[in-house]
Amino acid sequence: MSAPLPLALTMGDPAGIGGEIALAAWARLRGEGPAFVALDDPARLLALAARLGWDVPVITVSGPEEAAAVFPAALPVMTVRCPAPPVPGRPDPANAPAVLGSIERAVALASAGRVGGVVTNPISKATLYRTGFAFPGHTEFLGALTGTAEPPVMLLASPMLRVVPVTIHVSLRRALDTLTTAEIIRTGLALDRGLREGFGMVAPRIAVAGLNPHAGEEGAMGDEEPRLVTPAIEALREGGVDAFGPLPPDTMFTARARAGYDAALCLYHDQALIPIKTLDMDGGVNVTLGLPIIRTSPDHGTAFGIAGQGVADPGSLVAALRLAAGMAERRQMKASA
Amino acid sequence: MSAPLPLALTMGDPAGIGGEIALAAWARLRGEGPAFVALDDPARLLALAARLGWDVPVITVSGPEEAAAVFPAALPVMTVRCPAPPVPGRPDPANAPAVLGSIERAVALASAGRVGGVVTNPISKATLYRTGFAFPGHTEFLGALTGTAEPPVMLLASPMLRVVPVTIHVSLRRALDTLTTAEIIRTGLALDRGLREGFGMVAPRIAVAGLNPHAGEEGAMGDEEPRLVTPAIEALREGGVDAFGPLPPDTMFTARARAGYDAALCLYHDQALIPIKTLDMDGGVNVTLGLPIIRTSPDHGTAFGIAGQGVADPGSLVAALRLAAGMAERRQMKASA
Repeated sequence: MSAPLPLALTMGDPAGIGGEIALAAWARLRGEGPAFVALDDPARLLALAARLGWDVPVITVSGPEEAAAVFPAALPVMTVRCPAPPVPGRPDPANAPAVLGSIERAVALASAGRVGGVVTNPISKATLYRTGFAFPGHTEFLGALTGTAEPPVMLLASPMLRVVPVTIHVSLRRALDTLTTAEIIRTGLALDRGLREGFGMVAPRIAVAGLNPHAGEEGAMGDEEPRLVTPAIEALREGGVDAFGPLPPDTMFTARARAGYDAALCLYHDQALIPIKTLDMDGGVNVTLGLPIIRTSPDHGTAFGIAGQGVADPGSLVAALRLAAGMAERRQMKASA
Repeated sequence: MSAPLPLALTMGDPAGIGGEIALAAWARLRGEGPAFVALDDPARLLALAARLGWDVPVITVSGPEEAAAVFPAALPVMTVRCPAPPVPGRPDPANAPAVLGSIERAVALASAGRVGGVVTNPISKATLYRTGFAFPGHTEFLGALTGTAEPPVMLLASPMLRVVPVTIHVSLRRALDTLTTAEIIRTGLALDRGLREGFGMVAPRIAVAGLNPHAGEEGAMGDEEPRLVTPAIEALREGGVDAFGPLPPDTMFTARARAGYDAALCLYHDQALIPIKTLDMDGGVNVTLGLPIIRTSPDHGTAFGIAGQGVADPGSLVAALRLAAGMAERRQMKASA
């Protein structure tokens, strides 16, 4: 088997914590890997390291092929120049072309098979919107860049729990109004495939949440379980997916319950996000399923409030890099088998 | 100060785990207390202890006044006879009068100041409904027995978190349709008072959840935060309650966030129940606020599936007894001050 490809790490908003957690992640991973190349502005990374008093050498490379060799000695960077000098905590729309350019180049490298996958630093949607950015978020932009027809599916993974919300960034009322059996099935199929291909599971077991308290208690509180969820579970099972439920949402995330499944399919944002963040605020990783490339990201935002101080925890980014590397390795093994 | 009053423990459904966890709770608490008297059928408790091979002496008493003295030596029981011999796992509507009679006597003892408070074992609503029981649940029945005009408020307390849901046993859609500013205020006031009077807090700090992902993100996902929640928080603050929010629901239950408040006011059942059960499945205690008497209960059901085997964990019942005793002690101290 060939050596693992390095990963591409995007800049994210350069006024956020992306730069300092990239430097810290390199320091933590330079020994054992995985190797990554930052699509970033080397001048701003050097200035940041100097400002923080961190001894992180930065080396510019022309492509990811050089990155693996230099990684133990220095953080390899493919240059994406920021038009305006980034100021921590003060996002500047003038740097939007660099933020987006970094993502575009990372995706192009992954699509060409030159990196194992893309790990994205957090962006500021509000700042990008002011420059005419027309996508609801990062994930939809990646879908468009890779020509993916179906909306991508968001998996959140921590050492204790994996969850996928069927509806995501919509109001709770809209989540109720738009939830359909077809969408539960589509998301369940993407999750099953992602667990097999990305996580190397042979027979993933998927717990499906109910929508109402106690999963409706036999119709006493809402009818969505028999009307929408159970038909989806039956269709998934007929399609070879080991899905079960609908489970009472409040008891399905206990340690005992979690021992019975590999991932939980949840029906709305907070049903998925409350348990995973309550169990493990910093260890969560966001994985985008349904793209032709591997993409992970840390499960936090730009954190403008603490940017530039060197206090941001690189744990989630490190976990995102490790998870992407594991997924890439399985894909490479499969391709060469 | 006078000696603490014993607590009254109800029978619950005699086909459930109530009997065995009462026996186990006595064994655990006989040394240090708190003392309690079971409103139960002594014959069925003796038969249960014999069946399980547990050495728990049972003694019938005529009133709670005798209970404290005998508690270290035997489980004191005020007799409530079951019309039909209880069979573990098989609830029998014939025993409904005993189930309800146990609750009525416990409430009468508490209202008369003869016990410190009432701790209720789990009942089977489905079984009671078949005999014409006309209340949605335990708590509403207690409200009626004590002549409480306002609907009681449910607080769930564990060593790691206290939560109160504003809407409870209704479908998620109905929770959205019925949520009002007035109801958030009413629940917040009951919570503040409960934390002061029941938990002895001088300046309780209450975190109020948002309804939508990221608490609506400035109106991008739903308008309930500015329309319903923020006005309630403002009214609570004007009323002297240290409430703050609305907080993004997914990040408000992390260890770091929990360090910043005494209780979380949540807007729907699973927003409150998912985090507390995920953090601590067995240690949760249900406290009913807004009654003239003290009432707690274990945070689990009848568990018919494992009843009679002696494997049920008495941890939540023990925690419910301890919490009720602490609340009763504060009330006695205040009354005698």
